[in-house]
Amino acid sequence: MSKKRSSRPSLSKTGIVERLCRFSVELPSWGFSNTGTRFGKYLQDAAAVDIEDKLADAGIVNKFTGAAPSVAVHALWDFPNGFDNDVLKLARKHRVKIGAVNPNIFQDQCYKFGSITNRDPAIRRRAVKHILDCVELARQAKSRYVSLWFADGANYPGQADIRQRKAWATQSLKKIHSAMPAGMTLLVEYKPFEPAAYFTDFFDWGSSYILAKAAGPKAKVLVDIGHHLPGTNVEQIVAWLIDEKMLGGFHFNDRKYADEDLTAGSIDPYQLFRIFNEIASWEHQHQKDLDISYVIDQSHNIKPKVQASIQTICTAQEIFAKAMMVDREALAKSQALEDTVASEQVLLKAFHTDVDDILRRVRRQNNAYPDPLDAYRKSGYEEESARRRAEKRREMNICEGGSYA
Amino acid sequence: MSKKRSSRPSLSKTGIVERLCRFSVELPSWGFSNTGTRFGKYLQDAAAVDIEDKLADAGIVNKFTGAAPSVAVHALWDFPNGFDNDVLKLARKHRVKIGAVNPNIFQDQCYKFGSITNRDPAIRRRAVKHILDCVELARQAKSRYVSLWFADGANYPGQADIRQRKAWATQSLKKIHSAMPAGMTLLVEYKPFEPAAYFTDFFDWGSSYILAKAAGPKAKVLVDIGHHLPGTNVEQIVAWLIDEKMLGGFHFNDRKYADEDLTAGSIDPYQLFRIFNEIASWEHQHQKDLDISYVIDQSHNIKPKVQASIQTICTAQEIFAKAMMVDREALAKSQALEDTVASEQVLLKAFHTDVDDILRRVRRQNNAYPDPLDAYRKSGYEEESARRRAEKRREMNICEGGSYA
Amino acid sequence: MSKKRSSRPSLSKTGIVERLCRFSVELPSWGFSNTGTRFGKYLQDAAAVDIEDKLADAGIVNKFTGAAPSVAVHALWDFPNGFDNDVLKLARKHRVKIGAVNPNIFQDQCYKFGSITNRDPAIRRRAVKHILDCVELARQAKSRYVSLWFADGANYPGQADIRQRKAWATQSLKKIHSAMPAGMTLLVEYKPFEPAAYFTDFFDWGSSYILAKAAGPKAKVLVDIGHHLPGTNVEQIVAWLIDEKMLGGFHFNDRKYADEDLTAGSIDPYQLFRIFNEIASWEHQHQKDLDISYVIDQSHNIKPKVQASIQTICTAQEIFAKAMMVDREALAKSQALEDTVASEQVLLKAFHTDVDDILRRVRRQNNAYPDPLDAYRKSGYEEESARRRAEKRREMNICEGGSYA
Amino acid sequence: MSKKRSSRPSLSKTGIVERLCRFSVELPSWGFSNTGTRFGKYLQDAAAVDIEDKLADAGIVNKFTGAAPSVAVHALWDFPNGFDNDVLKLARKHRVKIGAVNPNIFQDQCYKFGSITNRDPAIRRRAVKHILDCVELARQAKSRYVSLWFADGANYPGQADIRQRKAWATQSLKKIHSAMPAGMTLLVEYKPFEPAAYFTDFFDWGSSYILAKAAGPKAKVLVDIGHHLPGTNVEQIVAWLIDEKMLGGFHFNDRKYADEDLTAGSIDPYQLFRIFNEIASWEHQHQKDLDISYVIDQSHNIKPKVQASIQTICTAQEIFAKAMMVDREALAKSQALEDTVASEQVLLKAFHTDVDDILRRVRRQNNAYPDPLDAYRKSGYEEESARRRAEKRREMNICEGGSYA
Repeated sequence: MSKKRSSRPSLSKTGIVERLCRFSVELPSWGFSNTGTRFGKYLQDAAAVDIEDKLADAGIVNKFTGAAPSVAVHALWDFPNGFDNDVLKLARKHRVKIGAVNPNIFQDQCYKFGSITNRDPAIRRRAVKHILDCVELARQAKSRYVSLWFADGANYPGQADIRQRKAWATQSLKKIHSAMPAGMTLLVEYKPFEPAAYFTDFFDWGSSYILAKAAGPKAKVLVDIGHHLPGTNVEQIVAWLIDEKMLGGFHFNDRKYADEDLTAGSIDPYQLFRIFNEIASWEHQHQKDLDISYVIDQSHNIKPKVQASIQTICTAQEIFAKAMMVDREALAKSQALEDTVASEQVLLKAFHTDVDDILRRVRRQNNAYPDPLDAYRKSGYEEESARRRAEKRREMNICEGGSYA
Repeated sequence: MSKKRSSRPSLSKTGIVERLCRFSVELPSWGFSNTGTRFGKYLQDAAAVDIEDKLADAGIVNKFTGAAPSVAVHALWDFPNGFDNDVLKLARKHRVKIGAVNPNIFQDQCYKFGSITNRDPAIRRRAVKHILDCVELARQAKSRYVSLWFADGANYPGQADIRQRKAWATQSLKKIHSAMPAGMTLLVEYKPFEPAAYFTDFFDWGSSYILAKAAGPKAKVLVDIGHHLPGTNVEQIVAWLIDEKMLGGFHFNDRKYADEDLTAGSIDPYQLFRIFNEIASWEHQHQKDLDISYVIDQSHNIKPKVQASIQTICTAQEIFAKAMMVDREALAKSQALEDTVASEQVLLKAFHTDVDDILRRVRRQNNAYPDPLDAYRKSGYEEESARRRAEKRREMNICEGGSYA
Repeated sequence: MSKKRSSRPSLSKTGIVERLCRFSVELPSWGFSNTGTRFGKYLQDAAAVDIEDKLADAGIVNKFTGAAPSVAVHALWDFPNGFDNDVLKLARKHRVKIGAVNPNIFQDQCYKFGSITNRDPAIRRRAVKHILDCVELARQAKSRYVSLWFADGANYPGQADIRQRKAWATQSLKKIHSAMPAGMTLLVEYKPFEPAAYFTDFFDWGSSYILAKAAGPKAKVLVDIGHHLPGTNVEQIVAWLIDEKMLGGFHFNDRKYADEDLTAGSIDPYQLFRIFNEIASWEHQHQKDLDISYVIDQSHNIKPKVQASIQTICTAQEIFAKAMMVDREALAKSQALEDTVASEQVLLKAFHTDVDDILRRVRRQNNAYPDPLDAYRKSGYEEESARRRAEKRREMNICEGGSYA
Repeated sequence: MSKKRSSRPSLSKTGIVERLCRFSVELPSWGFSNTGTRFGKYLQDAAAVDIEDKLADAGIVNKFTGAAPSVAVHALWDFPNGFDNDVLKLARKHRVKIGAVNPNIFQDQCYKFGSITNRDPAIRRRAVKHILDCVELARQAKSRYVSLWFADGANYPGQADIRQRKAWATQSLKKIHSAMPAGMTLLVEYKPFEPAAYFTDFFDWGSSYILAKAAGPKAKVLVDIGHHLPGTNVEQIVAWLIDEKMLGGFHFNDRKYADEDLTAGSIDPYQLFRIFNEIASWEHQHQKDLDISYVIDQSHNIKPKVQASIQTICTAQEIFAKAMMVDREALAKSQALEDTVASEQVLLKAFHTDVDDILRRVRRQNNAYPDPLDAYRKSGYEEESARRRAEKRREMNICEGGSYA
């Protein structure tokens, strides 16, 4: 297959519609629960109480958007007792599949000084064991992904030995990798800070790249858009990881200052466009879909969770559509002439193009609503959820508040 | 009084010892409780359970350091039922005074969209009322300070009207100011983000300056060292506020990425030195102590709280001592010659000077321990607290954990 | 006049067209010259050699866009011998007016340690004198603005006395202000760093606000979009300055990391939209135009200068149009309901609206080209300029290169 | 050799003196020339005019410090006609050796759109050819290092194809690597921005790591301390590169906001200490010196260059000495107990230790001056240089000024 960049015409509108019909974004089960900041949570009656609520909400997002058929799960919160066939039944009931399995190796008090990088071999073993359980859970749930995010790190200079922890991370990942079945991918996330305050063990794409390479060929890097220092050129990291065949997928969200886990594209939609542009550019060049995982990872302290999820799916479709509207031939031509103004205008023109008709066609083909957010807001689902779940909380005597100090 | 800068010799060692004996740092009651990040808290048995524990811990910090005679209190957590004479008795028992009174106008669910800048006039009134209660509490507790920090702001573009909220903030502060007795100071903090994710209503020193000016002469700006965007020159802000007679005081802590509330001087001790240098410079010029409030505000997810507090008091003394070691005559002379290298070396020399003997003299005069941290660690207090408080938690069935989602 | 925010309908398309016809952006004379980075300049034959070239280029930008009728001038580079009637004649010839007059108080070697904050009173006087000459020049050229940007600051801790320099800045600005004729505005810019590396004397909006207030009522703050620390919420600063009646105007550009002086809206078009949204919001509320100065200040090391200028004018019009498309009634309604998702969508919808037809109508009314950039690129002006100016450089033996070391 | 971390005692003072006697820092020839910012240069009469001046200055720095025996050279500025035996003779005369050879692949106008990543194969070849000439120059000058810094990148989204440029960078580095003799090291620097404003081709340590790995085993990563985004944990990158055997060396300097190229340790001395701590930690564990290159790379617009160089050498020695003062046994013990406060205090204690006597012993052994900076300032060298070089500039009619626009 030729990889020549400039010779091939851009996608037609129909081509874009077809590609978008094959594009879906995974929902995180925890995105439907009450979450907040260290200063507290603003609770929502309609927030999910349990795994059934979460799957129901995901099913609703999928019903209205037609583009969210799977749910990333969190082992500790969703499968507290390991694999559970009832959860799969619930998923089927709500017409969603189980997606990436996420271990929790930060909530237990034993992880105060790290999980797979803890100095104590017993705790490292426990963390690895929990991840191996997640691999098994993914296998049984027929999920292709186990997705790792580590809170591991240190808060103060001197607290920990950076190189020693790197060695422990490497050992642990190798063990995990060796237990993974063929066809399963280990996603290795990174984050420069929070909760660790001085350094994190998986601190940037370079560190996750090295650790994933050391683990083995089934390990890839996961890019969470909000997990970067101010100013980082995220689309360049994406392009490099694609080029190295080391991009495993995305966690979608947006940020202004730190890792605020805001709705994707809410602060910097043009950055999201430039990220999708790298994907669209590769797909145009290779004439096939990039096989990676697209997942939402947001935390909504204010916004209703289902609404925010629908909004994000629609934004991802809209921005991807715009990225596919980039005139690849014109861009190749102006780049060949080093005509910076013209090249930039090709991108900006696509970004400012109205793609509503494309989105409508996609939604029609996906049996979704033409305006998913509006339709959902009018559906009464949220009011009904709020009523039922408030009652459930009262009955089960659930208190999610918490206090800063 | 002359304000000529270069004519006066620097402080002698004895002068520095005397100044440090007059220098004390206030402890925050909440700094002895279990706190954490949005991902959870790592709990410590020795963390304070109630206000008596907090005052006892503060008393211990004061006993070992001799430089922490007062405790900033949090109205909601420490005086849940308003002014309470029993708390004052406890304070006396542990030989500490009540310091700045801090309202809590962010924890209640009603403050989801703001407190004094909430669109709903009833909530604004409620927030103002709570702060006025704090003014009254401060009056009765003979505290000089009411200290305001607002979580108010917005998470998304469009969510709120910036100018309208500014107007509400101004109105509310005026009401509060008009109720304050003479001799009391209203400290107005600022913070660029967190928990608000898109904008905060008190976002930088300029905004707090304008709002404090509008409130009236008893309102001053509070500088929390960690509440700045990356790169901000904090010592310059301090110098400007001093010059404008608008500096009310400090919240000491340190940060690397966001507002991590780490131990003061743990990440950038030279920045802390440059801040104290601005204070020492003003005091040298005016030959009097700058009358401001020095308070710790840190959150220790890992470190034992009493240890971290003692460490911070010692750091503040050490760095202030170093700042007073700056040879003001030499500095004035090299600045007059625009001799940048020599001027810089004057600061660096002072920063690298060993001030242990000065600190020992201060501690002797303060009836404190020569090495407060070491003495405390050997005292058995922490082990005893841990034992007792673990038992208290069991008895009272207190659970401080919480879960991210 | 009522200031109620929600009761009034948004602008019609015709209203937007009319407002845009009254909207113009000033061009900087220095924006047509060869500029670069400290590592060197990439020279363009078509770059302006002298003031006539600059005015000709400005005239061309105005001809094609119909929205750039004035030129900000730089005293040192454009009026090296003080006011010069010939320059005014040239301006008339190219159908542009003289706009803001910018002193140069950083290029001369005497300003190594500051201009109006220099320790040496003779240099401070010289700087003030030069600015007073600019006031006189502005008066004679019938310009309303003198625009001040200071490179003053320090590179190292200890180098300079922050409070002393603040005092000198205040004194100097007062002298300048007292000499200004009625109707003239003194614009006071700020910048956190560069060229000064440790602190600048006018370091943020708060500092310029205080100094402008101290100078007098004719002094206002100038916001250069690129002059902010990473993460700064620029639209909030704009809203506050508008509210304080202290916004004097803008320098348009964009940035990714530092003050790269890129084309406005090239990196973060949604930020530019949010800035214009604050202007549109105020204008909608007060039913009149905000009377401030809009100027481009960019440095094009790569892009052809006239093209970049046209591109910027068009971007400013486009983004302002989108900001006026915001449905103010819907926004007020959703804000009143604290409906964050709906409020955000109002902004996003306006931002993603295609405003091409509005822009075409504006350009028709302004006697400009429907697609100014495309028309200019085809006009042959650039090729002709390149030819003539290359020849002029050869004849005049001009060398603009320079070397890093 | 055992790599156990905790069993071995820390260095004695004599051990530290011995290690420091083996520690030297390379001077950059360009650091003695007039340099500045894009807004201009503040010229110094004493700045070097030609290669002889630079080598003389370097010889003086080495004479006073005893720790700067080599000079990094810049091919374009120091060897404009290729290898030149006269330069070697001058070096011998001034008792310095030729150190790392630095190509210049950014100053020529042909590199406007990149050097080894330029779209034009002829320009790529030219850049590679120039670097190969530098390899040959290094071979003849008996230097171990060729040091690559690229200005390559793009200013605007769309301007260039990120993956294509990555491919060109890889190809070019492979060609260069294949021509390098055994024992020579190719240092590959990185920088997130400047002069490129949107992305750089070698943008972070991860990118340089990947490209160096692709080039071959003689390529290593060069860490310039100032070339990082705000907040980056530089010591962690250093630790990782050491662990991967991919650290080639350092460019010493410091920064506050961007790449200001300030004196090392002038803004954040504790960061420099933590970097040296990683080196000292590795050396303690492996009982041998880390074999890497230490070079100064600073730009002094204000400070006299020789003074700044001496100051930097002394700072590097002082901070390295402090890092070697870290009590490795105590640190290992407190880390093993997860005693964060104690671990942190071990570092802080070493950082605040007075190492003046160690430095005096080192200087005595190195036949250097006890207080190199003071001695140099009194030596009269600077005044004499200023006189002679001002005259040389007049005679040779050299003008280094330049104008922003």
